[in-house]
Amino acid sequence: MHDPADPSSLRPAKRDLVSIDDFSNQEILELFKLAHEMGRDLRAWSHLCGGFILASLFYEASTRTRLSFESAMGRLGGRVISAADMSSSSASKGESLADTVRVVGGSYADVIILRHPCEGAAKVAAEYAAVPVVNAGDGSHEHPTQTLCDLYSLWVEKGSLEGLTVVLVGDLRYSRTVHSFAYALARFRANLVFVPHPGLELPSYVLERLGRRQAYEPQHVTLRDFPDVSRDADVVYCTPQKPHQLSLFTEVTELDVPSYDALYVTRPQIERFVRDGGRAPERYLRIEPHTMAGKKFKATSLMHPLPRTGEIAYEMDKDPRSIYFAQAARGVHVRMALISVLLGRSSFKSPPPERVADGDEVVGSPLSCANPTCISSKEAHLGSRFRIDSRRPFRVRCAFCETERPVGFVGDRERRTAWRSGAPEAADVRAEEMVLFESDEQVQRAAFAN
Amino acid sequence: MHDPADPSSLRPAKRDLVSIDDFSNQEILELFKLAHEMGRDLRAWSHLCGGFILASLFYEASTRTRLSFESAMGRLGGRVISAADMSSSSASKGESLADTVRVVGGSYADVIILRHPCEGAAKVAAEYAAVPVVNAGDGSHEHPTQTLCDLYSLWVEKGSLEGLTVVLVGDLRYSRTVHSFAYALARFRANLVFVPHPGLELPSYVLERLGRRQAYEPQHVTLRDFPDVSRDADVVYCTPQKPHQLSLFTEVTELDVPSYDALYVTRPQIERFVRDGGRAPERYLRIEPHTMAGKKFKATSLMHPLPRTGEIAYEMDKDPRSIYFAQAARGVHVRMALISVLLGRSSFKSPPPERVADGDEVVGSPLSCANPTCISSKEAHLGSRFRIDSRRPFRVRCAFCETERPVGFVGDRERRTAWRSGAPEAADVRAEEMVLFESDEQVQRAAFAN
Amino acid sequence: MHDPADPSSLRPAKRDLVSIDDFSNQEILELFKLAHEMGRDLRAWSHLCGGFILASLFYEASTRTRLSFESAMGRLGGRVISAADMSSSSASKGESLADTVRVVGGSYADVIILRHPCEGAAKVAAEYAAVPVVNAGDGSHEHPTQTLCDLYSLWVEKGSLEGLTVVLVGDLRYSRTVHSFAYALARFRANLVFVPHPGLELPSYVLERLGRRQAYEPQHVTLRDFPDVSRDADVVYCTPQKPHQLSLFTEVTELDVPSYDALYVTRPQIERFVRDGGRAPERYLRIEPHTMAGKKFKATSLMHPLPRTGEIAYEMDKDPRSIYFAQAARGVHVRMALISVLLGRSSFKSPPPERVADGDEVVGSPLSCANPTCISSKEAHLGSRFRIDSRRPFRVRCAFCETERPVGFVGDRERRTAWRSGAPEAADVRAEEMVLFESDEQVQRAAFAN
Repeated sequence: MHDPADPSSLRPAKRDLVSIDDFSNQEILELFKLAHEMGRDLRAWSHLCGGFILASLFYEASTRTRLSFESAMGRLGGRVISAADMSSSSASKGESLADTVRVVGGSYADVIILRHPCEGAAKVAAEYAAVPVVNAGDGSHEHPTQTLCDLYSLWVEKGSLEGLTVVLVGDLRYSRTVHSFAYALARFRANLVFVPHPGLELPSYVLERLGRRQAYEPQHVTLRDFPDVSRDADVVYCTPQKPHQLSLFTEVTELDVPSYDALYVTRPQIERFVRDGGRAPERYLRIEPHTMAGKKFKATSLMHPLPRTGEIAYEMDKDPRSIYFAQAARGVHVRMALISVLLGRSSFKSPPPERVADGDEVVGSPLSCANPTCISSKEAHLGSRFRIDSRRPFRVRCAFCETERPVGFVGDRERRTAWRSGAPEAADVRAEEMVLFESDEQVQRAAFAN
Repeated sequence: MHDPADPSSLRPAKRDLVSIDDFSNQEILELFKLAHEMGRDLRAWSHLCGGFILASLFYEASTRTRLSFESAMGRLGGRVISAADMSSSSASKGESLADTVRVVGGSYADVIILRHPCEGAAKVAAEYAAVPVVNAGDGSHEHPTQTLCDLYSLWVEKGSLEGLTVVLVGDLRYSRTVHSFAYALARFRANLVFVPHPGLELPSYVLERLGRRQAYEPQHVTLRDFPDVSRDADVVYCTPQKPHQLSLFTEVTELDVPSYDALYVTRPQIERFVRDGGRAPERYLRIEPHTMAGKKFKATSLMHPLPRTGEIAYEMDKDPRSIYFAQAARGVHVRMALISVLLGRSSFKSPPPERVADGDEVVGSPLSCANPTCISSKEAHLGSRFRIDSRRPFRVRCAFCETERPVGFVGDRERRTAWRSGAPEAADVRAEEMVLFESDEQVQRAAFAN
Repeated sequence: MHDPADPSSLRPAKRDLVSIDDFSNQEILELFKLAHEMGRDLRAWSHLCGGFILASLFYEASTRTRLSFESAMGRLGGRVISAADMSSSSASKGESLADTVRVVGGSYADVIILRHPCEGAAKVAAEYAAVPVVNAGDGSHEHPTQTLCDLYSLWVEKGSLEGLTVVLVGDLRYSRTVHSFAYALARFRANLVFVPHPGLELPSYVLERLGRRQAYEPQHVTLRDFPDVSRDADVVYCTPQKPHQLSLFTEVTELDVPSYDALYVTRPQIERFVRDGGRAPERYLRIEPHTMAGKKFKATSLMHPLPRTGEIAYEMDKDPRSIYFAQAARGVHVRMALISVLLGRSSFKSPPPERVADGDEVVGSPLSCANPTCISSKEAHLGSRFRIDSRRPFRVRCAFCETERPVGFVGDRERRTAWRSGAPEAADVRAEEMVLFESDEQVQRAAFAN
């Protein structure tokens, strides 16, 4: 029996969902099977989580996500305590996120759903809370349940994920949803076709990560099947199969796949353009009945994370290939399954993911994260934590928000000496002894030789 | 079993409460009997709606209404997901109401309670959502559960509604509540005495509708029983009995009824005066112990929809005739009964109302609704829909907000010809072929002859 | 069976928690035993309050308090209706608190949790609502469940409250929490050591009340055990034992106790300084590992009502003496016990407190409360009510907010005569006949002789 006054007594068994990488592929498929079973009769589970409490802590408004989680908990027979606007409450008295989740995860709630504008917030919450934490969006970083829902919906429609061909269209630059979905699809060996709105291309770091983790190689292609949508687009194709099968004769090959399994459309993230000093895109794409008229689209599921703005015509709503409303409905099923697993009311048989050694962690350096919306920029007590991505060249990223961070000097705590981050000595310092500096000045202040 | 990913599977059996006219008189009385049974022991029903979820979608704040519905669902053992401030959420990302209710009615919730500042919003929600929708106020249009609660409270007090004499006093111009209550009372053949605050008389369209639908004829009368309240008022009496029984000798007769069954008081809708450029009324009425001193008031129930401002003195609170707090309490009972019926946990034996042919509908004309707060003015995808009220003279009203709309020209789609709306040819066009135009210019643009 | 349309039928048995003085010491200990039992397995009580509804009415935001109550009700199996922001709702239509709680306590809810910015609001709510009311903070007046939680946590740690030595440090001037905790500790005969931040000393009325009600005599002392914290502090010691045991030789004695049972730290109430035209304190105390290093601190529980700002270093979090997170967790246990008692699902065997005659009440005088945030200043219908604190000298305090109020003249309603409040005749007027005046002018207007 867990002693609520001693939160650590729960810790050993606790699982969080901060990133989709917290679950192995096999676990994800088990989750989907459970979700599917639950979705068959939503009212058959109303005693599964009786006596349990879910807390919604929303530091920014996201009514739909909140309602979806709260509905899932309600369908499981649990209770909900809800703070739809945390930003105007305790936090304004200066309380840290770490303290808040320790209180709420004390005996207020058995699972915490967190939405926060700062990247890395969910990781912090998971580390401090005594109860499972679900990341319901941390800034522009991750929103893993959205990705699970998208993936689940595709799995329900197609029966499997392996080898599917999925087209991702629209604003591929600012849509966190698309990035996460692409990473997840790649874990299941899907073929990806990126069709960006001109000027809103997929950032290079997404392609890089697909290459690094899944050995996907991006290929620029032309595409005739979507004349409306792809006309001026810089289309990129990524596949886990050998890509040279496609590029036989010309430099930029034409993509020729037998059919498309899904078309995933996103809205333009106008608020993000404006923040970056840009303008709303003109003539943003619009999917209309004729867009999906070709025979390659006979069985193409039309997906959208919703809310849509104008990018899918209302005429498509009755088309049996349009699954965006079903997709939203299924979000409740996946969240039901997830909550019941995290609360220990259902369990996975498959093993959890092996923790990929993303690099060792360097703790407590003078160097701080440069991302102004990183949780570590907001909460000083967290200090600085970086993960070493590679030693040659020397590259680190913030352990909270995962943003890459240029390093000026690398020091060795034992030898009290620092080297430029490009120097060979820098690459050899043991992580436990390592200190990272931004500038010569920081090195001086720490009284390291250099 | 309904497939939550396919909302339409629920549709056949679905009932909504958009307007009180969605229920027949017999159904209303059945609802009252059920409400009364439920009110006897509020804690005896806590398993009736177990496993069901109610969503409160409030696009404008109305805490009392929201709490009343959420309490009712709680008393029935169901769960609630609550969005007290929808206007600052998904909607702000540009999502249409139609999309929102399709998502929420997907698998989030089994019944939707909607409050919206736009007239016609509940009708739209009911058309798009896969689950029952209850109108908890759509702009200045309808608020049917308030009316049901008022009616129910009177029914509890008097044992029946037929033939009662009900006095409605105060701001009769801007109070939506009074208008709806009057229509409902008329359906049950009550006698109505309208005692307006000077300058805040009942709009003529209300009297007109009472005449058109219930054959009530308004009569200007004088009234001696309320010296304080009626002194300068233009009192109007409406009765389903032959009114000439009263007007025997003089032009403006004196009202003489044996007793008053209820006195329904409303607060001045100050926010509405100000919006219309008016001023708050001076010396608004105030019910005090001496106001109800005559013997005709011995059994008069003093009613108020609450919140009150100063129009009922606190001294009245202990008067056994004051039922306004009981009235509010009973609102929960009626909403319990309503929810259990809409969720299919209780059922009516009486037949639903025959759909009164309010006129045929004209869809997709260039003419648009002129009411700036009509839901069709906000959401372009809805297009234009009008109902033909009468053909000679030619009159239509918006199918969403029910506001009358002047028509310039009436066209025939087949003959590609349009006539002035007063012309005899206009009256003969079949509704399915009809196109409505505001102006000659619109006719030209559509390339219709005229 | 209670008739929900007749709220008064519940009244006889109703208990409220407006002030901690509403419970006797024995009742408090019974509550703690129940809380402790409940805390042992939070999921074992999920049917105790099935069918009951708790309403959270928060007229100012306090997310943590609200979530704690709502969690407690959830753990008991009851339902919650929640208005996190009452100030922007009905109240804005001009509704009085008295009306709101009569409606909500009608059939919406079985217990009301009220948070309000006005002193005395909870008392008003308790008087008007048909159901139990819990004060979750009324302005700067009381917040009794916070005090109960603090007391409970100490009781859990120490096994008893009698004779403990508790140090209260920091902002002792503006912290309502500290005042209430001190009063409560004194009821259980604890020894109190007040160590204020310089300039934020305990108000004299708190010491006065400790003296008046518990016969505690304050003593200025020096203190060597906290060099960091007490260096410039004007330390005050209060004990129910004869204080001269300490002051043997010198005027200002040195405090010498064998050990400290608890150290209760509060954050600086910066918003209050600023309101009063002050500045945030410089170098506010900070508890760090070395602060509690001496052997007198071996078993000292470190307490904080949370949220903390910088006054307890994060390094203390892992110290086994730090109980502030456990303290917050236990708040749910106490609130579970409280709610189950108020709903009649558990009961006290001990008798309730005898109502201490705090003085007779004087109702309906022209004199009004001078506190601008007293609920009686906001809601005119409440009229004026004062309690006579003492007759010689003549002193009264507002019956709502308990603020002392200078009186100009005291009148006798029967004799139509008034005297200066210092006059001997004033002291002899019977409370029922007494009328209080601010000024000569008020006396004249009431046509009293003087």
